[in-house]
Amino acid sequence: MKPIETCTVGIVGLGLMGGAFAMALRNVMGRGGRILACDMNEQALAAAKAAGDIDEGFTSPEGMLGICDLVFLCINPSALLRFMDRRMPAFTPGTLITDIAGVKAGIVDAMERTLRDDLDFIPGHPMAGSEKGGYVHAKSCNFNGKNYILTPLRRNKPEHLVFLKNLITRMGFSRITETTAEEHDRKIAFTSQLSHVIAAALVDCEADREITRFGGGSFEDLTRIAMLNAPMWTELFLENRRELLQRICRFQESLDKLKGLIADEDREALENNLRMVRERRMAMA
Amino acid sequence: MKPIETCTVGIVGLGLMGGAFAMALRNVMGRGGRILACDMNEQALAAAKAAGDIDEGFTSPEGMLGICDLVFLCINPSALLRFMDRRMPAFTPGTLITDIAGVKAGIVDAMERTLRDDLDFIPGHPMAGSEKGGYVHAKSCNFNGKNYILTPLRRNKPEHLVFLKNLITRMGFSRITETTAEEHDRKIAFTSQLSHVIAAALVDCEADREITRFGGGSFEDLTRIAMLNAPMWTELFLENRRELLQRICRFQESLDKLKGLIADEDREALENNLRMVRERRMAMA
Repeated sequence: MKPIETCTVGIVGLGLMGGAFAMALRNVMGRGGRILACDMNEQALAAAKAAGDIDEGFTSPEGMLGICDLVFLCINPSALLRFMDRRMPAFTPGTLITDIAGVKAGIVDAMERTLRDDLDFIPGHPMAGSEKGGYVHAKSCNFNGKNYILTPLRRNKPEHLVFLKNLITRMGFSRITETTAEEHDRKIAFTSQLSHVIAAALVDCEADREITRFGGGSFEDLTRIAMLNAPMWTELFLENRRELLQRICRFQESLDKLKGLIADEDREALENNLRMVRERRMAMA
Repeated sequence: MKPIETCTVGIVGLGLMGGAFAMALRNVMGRGGRILACDMNEQALAAAKAAGDIDEGFTSPEGMLGICDLVFLCINPSALLRFMDRRMPAFTPGTLITDIAGVKAGIVDAMERTLRDDLDFIPGHPMAGSEKGGYVHAKSCNFNGKNYILTPLRRNKPEHLVFLKNLITRMGFSRITETTAEEHDRKIAFTSQLSHVIAAALVDCEADREITRFGGGSFEDLTRIAMLNAPMWTELFLENRRELLQRICRFQESLDKLKGLIADEDREALENNLRMVRERRMAMA
């Protein structure tokens, strides 16, 4: 792989994450190479070009895919599978492709089976985002210090992995974890999807808009992510539902246990449990 | 009530909140008046005096209470009731007393019944805090822009309420809500206590310390408050258990509903629910 500063990089989907990648890539590449983007939203393309985040915008991927060395697919999981199914012939031989989807088993399985021999595809998941959506909010999506998960295919070229990890680090991410799609989906069901389900349930059970007069920060912190992208999270929840449902059940057991201690006024056991939780969380931090 | 800049203010309990109040009061009072504090922790008293946050420290309240115009009780709810029961005779006539306890029905009831006729007591709840404890972390407890709830007694003097609200505003709080102890406890059970129970349950159900490698911010935001002060939160949960248990049940119903939609793969209903939640939370913000 040639140096990133001489690459033509294509971004498919110039929304919140695609826009954030364009900005991070520009930061790394400076005026070297080219950053292209394709999206149906012509306004986003024009704004990104005017801001200097991209060099050229495309409303159809055909013209772009044939001239890229590296492609970031920044679209929802189901759109991603349809895209690869339909646009596979348009990529030029040797292209390195990566994605940012929040559930990995489906895409890893599909790419192991169907990816063209002369392409490479490294599935990835940048653990960054925002409750705001679209290119207009891309600046609010900060990569610095964030986690990045890669779930490589068996066939990934080692030099491509090295190249991508180096680029990810240069874009600001601080910790890259390589793992299987299964482990990714199991753990993400807990850290990400369960958190979003809980935040949604918490807002679901209180209709009073003025409740925030009684907020001290914890309710606000817990429910900020309830301002989620509904179609995308519906996809993520359903795509990973087996793991997510298990996690919800385990959480319900823990919640029932605490509720029981409160109902029984078991002061000692409750305080011991809260102390254990405090110590465990501090060890995680 | 004379101007705050000429008052002698006493703080009972120089922990995280007592320390934060000392600092905020110093900011308002400058070098006018005097700020006193009593605590069993002599190190905290010495550090606060050296830092200029207080003018004098007391290890026993007797010497301090007799010379104060205004007293902030910054101790746990149960300690607060014991303190008022035992130290009531030590206050000088005319003293305005306030507290910061997170549950209000018990203290309002006790003060309506037992407060000396020549004292005034305005129950309060500053909606600020930190997962860190003690005077050493008092600086991390920021009052700016935070909510403050007052649950006045029937007998509170109007000029004392005006005085305290003015002081609260000058200390940086942005929104003061006056309500009954019952409404306070009902709403706080949701915004504060339920959030802490959920955070604790979320940490309770995952023992893997390395899980934060898979964190993107939402898990961290939801569980930061799990690093709670275990004895204090045990008290708050048990003191307000009737309201809290109702809130836990309502949350469990919402969670069960979402779980059912995921298990049934009811894409449309799930997406509609997430959309409703998003809109409701945005209206709250």
